[in-house]
Amino acid sequence: MSQFEDLKQKCFDANMQLPDLGLVVYTFGNVSVADRDRSVFAIKPSGVPYRDLKASDIVIVDFDNKVVEGKLRPSSDTKTHSFLYRSWKTVNGVCHTHSTYAVAWAQAQRDIPILGTTHADSLTQDVPCTKPMDTRLIQGDYEHNTGQQIVDCFSERSLDFSEVEMVLVGNHGPFTWGKNADKAVYNSRILEELAKMAFLTLSINPDAPRLSDALIKKHFERKHGPDSYYGQE
Amino acid sequence: MSQFEDLKQKCFDANMQLPDLGLVVYTFGNVSVADRDRSVFAIKPSGVPYRDLKASDIVIVDFDNKVVEGKLRPSSDTKTHSFLYRSWKTVNGVCHTHSTYAVAWAQAQRDIPILGTTHADSLTQDVPCTKPMDTRLIQGDYEHNTGQQIVDCFSERSLDFSEVEMVLVGNHGPFTWGKNADKAVYNSRILEELAKMAFLTLSINPDAPRLSDALIKKHFERKHGPDSYYGQE
Amino acid sequence: MSQFEDLKQKCFDANMQLPDLGLVVYTFGNVSVADRDRSVFAIKPSGVPYRDLKASDIVIVDFDNKVVEGKLRPSSDTKTHSFLYRSWKTVNGVCHTHSTYAVAWAQAQRDIPILGTTHADSLTQDVPCTKPMDTRLIQGDYEHNTGQQIVDCFSERSLDFSEVEMVLVGNHGPFTWGKNADKAVYNSRILEELAKMAFLTLSINPDAPRLSDALIKKHFERKHGPDSYYGQE
Amino acid sequence: MSQFEDLKQKCFDANMQLPDLGLVVYTFGNVSVADRDRSVFAIKPSGVPYRDLKASDIVIVDFDNKVVEGKLRPSSDTKTHSFLYRSWKTVNGVCHTHSTYAVAWAQAQRDIPILGTTHADSLTQDVPCTKPMDTRLIQGDYEHNTGQQIVDCFSERSLDFSEVEMVLVGNHGPFTWGKNADKAVYNSRILEELAKMAFLTLSINPDAPRLSDALIKKHFERKHGPDSYYGQE
Repeated sequence: MSQFEDLKQKCFDANMQLPDLGLVVYTFGNVSVADRDRSVFAIKPSGVPYRDLKASDIVIVDFDNKVVEGKLRPSSDTKTHSFLYRSWKTVNGVCHTHSTYAVAWAQAQRDIPILGTTHADSLTQDVPCTKPMDTRLIQGDYEHNTGQQIVDCFSERSLDFSEVEMVLVGNHGPFTWGKNADKAVYNSRILEELAKMAFLTLSINPDAPRLSDALIKKHFERKHGPDSYYGQE
Repeated sequence: MSQFEDLKQKCFDANMQLPDLGLVVYTFGNVSVADRDRSVFAIKPSGVPYRDLKASDIVIVDFDNKVVEGKLRPSSDTKTHSFLYRSWKTVNGVCHTHSTYAVAWAQAQRDIPILGTTHADSLTQDVPCTKPMDTRLIQGDYEHNTGQQIVDCFSERSLDFSEVEMVLVGNHGPFTWGKNADKAVYNSRILEELAKMAFLTLSINPDAPRLSDALIKKHFERKHGPDSYYGQE
Repeated sequence: MSQFEDLKQKCFDANMQLPDLGLVVYTFGNVSVADRDRSVFAIKPSGVPYRDLKASDIVIVDFDNKVVEGKLRPSSDTKTHSFLYRSWKTVNGVCHTHSTYAVAWAQAQRDIPILGTTHADSLTQDVPCTKPMDTRLIQGDYEHNTGQQIVDCFSERSLDFSEVEMVLVGNHGPFTWGKNADKAVYNSRILEELAKMAFLTLSINPDAPRLSDALIKKHFERKHGPDSYYGQE
Repeated sequence: MSQFEDLKQKCFDANMQLPDLGLVVYTFGNVSVADRDRSVFAIKPSGVPYRDLKASDIVIVDFDNKVVEGKLRPSSDTKTHSFLYRSWKTVNGVCHTHSTYAVAWAQAQRDIPILGTTHADSLTQDVPCTKPMDTRLIQGDYEHNTGQQIVDCFSERSLDFSEVEMVLVGNHGPFTWGKNADKAVYNSRILEELAKMAFLTLSINPDAPRLSDALIKKHFERKHGPDSYYGQE
């Protein structure tokens, strides 16, 4: 019996939310869960359809991408996950999907502008879209470099990964994260909603203005500030 | 045993319609039910996901926003609900969602024009979208001021809240109401449909004309006038 | 026990397809079934939600709109149905919905152009959209005049109601019909699909050409001509 | 008892995926499965709704379109399927649908441009859309000529049918194929997703660039090259 039983189950449960939330088809997407104490993370195996996935299929990998336990090959995006875990120590869950509207913004190579309070309830910034990757980096260690690209984007724009828990990788699609896997998956679902709302808003009114700074601040503080009064904590 | 058992159950049932109708995800949205005789209303607790919500979680609040019964914190939008109840005495149910198409119009800061009989069957006016809130009001008692903003919008435009039972709060999203909670929820579902239809109509024909006054009047009177002949009453 | 038991059941079954097909919400829409031998038709009662509807609620009406059997008031659109039955003797089922994309075209006051073989498999013409009704006719016997408007539209354009089994009433929405109620409902579902496809096609390419006459003819004859080879009959 | 029991069951199972995947309504669409050893293929009967379809209804046809076994008439698109089987010897499954977004691109007579890695994971080319068929060919052996049209399109553009397993027939809709029926159906579902993503991408940014050659190559090789590292094989 594996010492990683619990971690695998958590990772399996998080992955199985994706088809229920309508964020993936077939084998698309993957969620990982980090266990900082044991310096490993659990991740979906590569190319296994959700309807066939079992908790015992989940692969345990260390932060240098070495398989610690598991018979199957880990997700082809594993190196992107590990890059984020190495860079951002308080992140314990990462989620990647090809959800339709978020991918459309990534392919359009546009940040998703903050247009309303639904967006501000989750983050106070536009959802950033990374620049297309250089050919040299694509030909190199691609998935590793995708992680680099995300972290660089946050540095260049002075974004805080604990406040903006989502990114669009240009031409590719969304990555989201959080303090645990449930939050990472939650952020993927929210991002898809924000992406659809922004698409519709700009279709109705191409000149729809960004949310005012005062309203951004207010909605963020309702949920996240020291005087927050949203939720039960 | 609570004296508000019935009221809580009614409020719970109304809230649980929202995920079934596809109007909310996770913890978004909230419905309240007023009991005018007892000068209280029941409302969803803040930040509780629908799949975890129980009738016993519902919070009883008076019209000055004081919690009368309940262990959980009431919805962060409670002051908006109470403002509407205090202002409009025949309203006994209020519903707030972040439904996709209605939010898109709110973010676009556009009234939803009355383009067809589906709209006229419910209301004879464009669905009003409030102006963005002043910074000073945002920084003040925000949710209270959101109620104020809605009521002011109706005054300024000489709208009757018993005929137009819905509004878009600019940058934010829809609030709807009615003589009871079921009607408030019903109006949220209808509003989402009108919002989608209007978006599609103007995409097909940007010059689609508003409905003629004669047709507006006819469809309204079919359902609501003294000679109404729609329905069974 | 009613002599119209069978007819009511048929009508009930046809109506209950509408929510399953995603064509209606709440009380929207109605289907009727004609019994030519007995000179009556069965129709949904007015304003009854589908989830509450029972076969015994169905109302039996003669072709002059007089209720023959039933405790409830028949659909407010009854006079439109009877007008079509009186005008077109081989029609035995009529269906009316407020399905989203078909309504959008009706509100846009545009015919749905025939852009592909999906359309041609069902009809060889654009789906006609009637002109907005004159104020005088609206103020008169409105639902009767809606039927008149449909029949006039077919006369003016020399359309054959047995080949084009659908129409958009401008500002309002779709009516469809057929040799029986199942065909009428089928046509409503197909119309919604054609309406969505045409909307998307023209969004992708505003200059998308109408289908060539040769292809229209070919697809129609596959299904309907004397040498038809589609289906099992 | 039929010697083709297994083949019929495989074909039935593949066809029944289509309504579950939301790719068809009523009788639209058809999947076939080839058995190269016995020089036959199994195909859906013409005009039978999915909800009524039984495995025993499946028709066995040889590559010259002669019915080998089955009481029902085979799909009216049978000659298109057989043309593809005769032309492309390693194809053992063909799928045809009228899925909404793919049909919209076919009606718009536009190739679906490769705009992101979701597309590149499946094919390294734009999804080709054939030219409208000549009137002469339409009036001739139409379904046979549709197959010809597809194969000609691939020749003219020097496309490899084993790398690009999908096509849009202009004005009509998608055909997809693969080494077996499951892969053919899979490709239809993926194509619908790519079609929707591309529609949304170009709505957000009409100037969205095609994916860079380096990224196309990378994503393709992840899944298909000699050093592929996606999946478990």
